[in-house]
Amino acid sequence: MSVAQEFEKANTNYSSNFTKGDLPLPPARKVAVVICMDARIDPAASLGLTEGDAHVIRNAGGRASDALRSVIISQRLLGTREIVVVHHTDCGMLTFSDNDLRGIVAKETGHNVDHFAFLPFGDLEKSVKDDVEFFKKNPLVLDVPVTGYIYDVKSGAINKVES
Amino acid sequence: MSVAQEFEKANTNYSSNFTKGDLPLPPARKVAVVICMDARIDPAASLGLTEGDAHVIRNAGGRASDALRSVIISQRLLGTREIVVVHHTDCGMLTFSDNDLRGIVAKETGHNVDHFAFLPFGDLEKSVKDDVEFFKKNPLVLDVPVTGYIYDVKSGAINKVES
Repeated sequence: MSVAQEFEKANTNYSSNFTKGDLPLPPARKVAVVICMDARIDPAASLGLTEGDAHVIRNAGGRASDALRSVIISQRLLGTREIVVVHHTDCGMLTFSDNDLRGIVAKETGHNVDHFAFLPFGDLEKSVKDDVEFFKKNPLVLDVPVTGYIYDVKSGAINKVES
Repeated sequence: MSVAQEFEKANTNYSSNFTKGDLPLPPARKVAVVICMDARIDPAASLGLTEGDAHVIRNAGGRASDALRSVIISQRLLGTREIVVVHHTDCGMLTFSDNDLRGIVAKETGHNVDHFAFLPFGDLEKSVKDDVEFFKKNPLVLDVPVTGYIYDVKSGAINKVES
């Protein structure tokens, strides 16, 4: 069975008990969370979110620049007024450089991807600060509270990064 | 209280009962899910995912092109071998055109964003097919199963889009 088929099966169960069919489109808690795609993180469970609460934007690393399009849509069309950035310990983004991955992709595909920015980082605390700053300084982003955290995959705890 | 502070409070509870501190970095089910950031969707609950299972990549619309960087990292460095794309009914991306949002942002910020692609769509089934095709044809993406779904925000059910 493909994982897609397993999803269909699990979803039959979810939808048969579904009671949240009348939620409005704009997030109730007016927040956009930018957080890594890492498999070990469940944003809803770990941050106390339920259906309807928040935009959850996820990408490799939880990088701000890669989330800009979504944040603009979230703020300008759907009314969010706070941003929370979450990176995490043991992140894959700490394990390679742009040149490493460009080399792997070029070798495996035969395509030159030297123009491609994979946005890895070497310092976790700095990456959070950088991404909080990115949102605070970007002229296309509203002047709203932006808070950064490091999620610890060993403990499940978030720790605030003071900027 | 800011939402960030509410997250800290909720997380204290989550981390105090945390038992999943020894999960490996690569996703156990070797799948990357590309799904909209919409507040009403809980990917873990609706698809039957638990911590450690899957990369979850979320952006406005669940657009494939915006997820490419993350999918490359997911496949080349972390071993995922299946992609599931999920768009949904009542999506904000169905409600505007690129020119609409460019106009709003330009008016509100004074910056010209005519170069910016916000990736809205007018036809939900077509957007899923387009994004499945995007992954199937992109030379930087591995030749793996790619399945597309529409999530119904009224019923909580996913419906497969045949490509």
